[in-house]
Amino acid sequence: MPELRKDPVLSRWIIIAKERSKRPTDFVVEEFKSKAGFCPLCPGHEKTTPHEVLVFGRDVGASSNSGGWKLRVVPNKYPALVIEGDLDKQGEGLYDRMNGIGAHEVVIESPNHEDRFSDLPQDSMYLVFLAYRERIRDLAKDDRFRYVMIFKNHGMAAGASLEHSHSQLVALPILPRMVTSELEGSLSYFKYKDRCIYCDIIRQEVQQSIRIVCENEHFVTLSPFAPRTPFEMWILPKKHSSSYADLDEKSMYSLAEIFSESLRRLDTCIPGVPYNFVLHTQPLRSPNLDHYHWHFEIVPKLTSIAGFEWGSGFYINSMPPEDTARYLREVF
Amino acid sequence: MPELRKDPVLSRWIIIAKERSKRPTDFVVEEFKSKAGFCPLCPGHEKTTPHEVLVFGRDVGASSNSGGWKLRVVPNKYPALVIEGDLDKQGEGLYDRMNGIGAHEVVIESPNHEDRFSDLPQDSMYLVFLAYRERIRDLAKDDRFRYVMIFKNHGMAAGASLEHSHSQLVALPILPRMVTSELEGSLSYFKYKDRCIYCDIIRQEVQQSIRIVCENEHFVTLSPFAPRTPFEMWILPKKHSSSYADLDEKSMYSLAEIFSESLRRLDTCIPGVPYNFVLHTQPLRSPNLDHYHWHFEIVPKLTSIAGFEWGSGFYINSMPPEDTARYLREVF
Repeated sequence: MPELRKDPVLSRWIIIAKERSKRPTDFVVEEFKSKAGFCPLCPGHEKTTPHEVLVFGRDVGASSNSGGWKLRVVPNKYPALVIEGDLDKQGEGLYDRMNGIGAHEVVIESPNHEDRFSDLPQDSMYLVFLAYRERIRDLAKDDRFRYVMIFKNHGMAAGASLEHSHSQLVALPILPRMVTSELEGSLSYFKYKDRCIYCDIIRQEVQQSIRIVCENEHFVTLSPFAPRTPFEMWILPKKHSSSYADLDEKSMYSLAEIFSESLRRLDTCIPGVPYNFVLHTQPLRSPNLDHYHWHFEIVPKLTSIAGFEWGSGFYINSMPPEDTARYLREVF
Repeated sequence: MPELRKDPVLSRWIIIAKERSKRPTDFVVEEFKSKAGFCPLCPGHEKTTPHEVLVFGRDVGASSNSGGWKLRVVPNKYPALVIEGDLDKQGEGLYDRMNGIGAHEVVIESPNHEDRFSDLPQDSMYLVFLAYRERIRDLAKDDRFRYVMIFKNHGMAAGASLEHSHSQLVALPILPRMVTSELEGSLSYFKYKDRCIYCDIIRQEVQQSIRIVCENEHFVTLSPFAPRTPFEMWILPKKHSSSYADLDEKSMYSLAEIFSESLRRLDTCIPGVPYNFVLHTQPLRSPNLDHYHWHFEIVPKLTSIAGFEWGSGFYINSMPPEDTARYLREVF
């Protein structure tokens, strides 16, 4: 079974997923597995994935794990965490560990192997964001889990191991540091100002408009004031909300629209750019928070800047966000 | 001039080094610059680097910036921070920025272009660690600086842009988050137990011995309990010390010995592995701290695991540190 371990100094949890382990000689640059010709995420291969937990677009009455779908969510065949078992926390001298209970799912975003996420029609992208919401709502019922982390690796340099467009979801029995740091930072601002810091950021950004990439009725895409990398983008809802799971269908269409536009701008600027995006939202079953504001962070993975930064939390970025925003605004 | 910017939620400082900026079309995988045949770090090309700030091995009386050296430290020709100017802090609405005052230097570790750091004779490696200490001591006299970060990118995948073996040093007017997080975490343990957490870690690790890679009189190399990546290693002094700058010459030979052995074990396990290492030490001009313990962290950069982890602070690692340590122990 996988295991969660906490760094005793930093309180940073990591997952040891030994089932996915390799021998030292296996650490070589991998080709996409699907290059060999067989893609487990393609229609017709439904039986090669674990049994689906959510499906959109298949006719009512058709049998599950069959074709005719627009989107499927299936458990990861090589999960970093496993769903069966009770939480078991243990100490080992000054260390803390926990057995690796959780869910690890794959959102297959389209039946078409060749579709890239950024090229999906708006209706298909809408289904992806709907799937995120439905899975969070469903996993929130399991009180062993405290957080659902949703992310996408696009391109091999960003860690994708399958070419077929997909994102991933990990339900965790702990809060990742990314979340606790944001909750603490935004709470400390709230205590001082009695306002949501993200709402203040949006207000200032819209007024200054130098770091805005694009906006629509419900959302704004901006390059943050202190970005880690060139072309980093955040997508935030204009109306205060701490929980992605509360998003209504109308806003979800609006999210699909701005997400698609933002990624197409990025991909036009740097064709074929690999990237990661991560959904930042409140912990499961938390009451709505006045100080926190859900959003997406999109971080391009540009080989020339990969370095010690990722390991040290200290970033040197060659591109001011004002330039990023200008390039992305002017590309169309 | 470069600029430091603080993320308002996370209090994470980043450097915007616009002088190093590129146009979007320039973000392509780069060949090592020296592949073109000319290496600015090689003997005979001393005049192409900025004027050296430290040199070892050249005859007394020989002119500076000439040949005959064993190690040189020179300012980075494309610095992320610049040395001239006064600190100037500014607000911009809710944001904080600072002009990019600092030092950015390159430690040229050997006159031989083909030498890899891990293959350096122990005497040459000793000079590298001596250079680190001398530069920290010198830069500490400049009270605009609060921290000296020393790191190495080995291999293109780890961010090295020149093939000739070198490490880098950045003197900063702020404390990077890596340091503040470690100082806070170790202080909180100290308040509770009245002991240094790193000393306790070493004691437990030596006793359990399952995560120990190797040790000598003064140092121990271990794979940490909660590693971010396969083959992550830390090198710690056995005797409590919070400041690398206090290291004596005898211990420095011992450090060269264990560093060399640890890297050779790693490189034998995964030939040609790219890696980063970072020196973690106390802030400049700090009194010695009972709760903090300087050390090196070595993080291999294995392409197959590069992913969203680096952006989110949430890591999935396929190799338990007990396996890492066993592989590295048994490789010779």
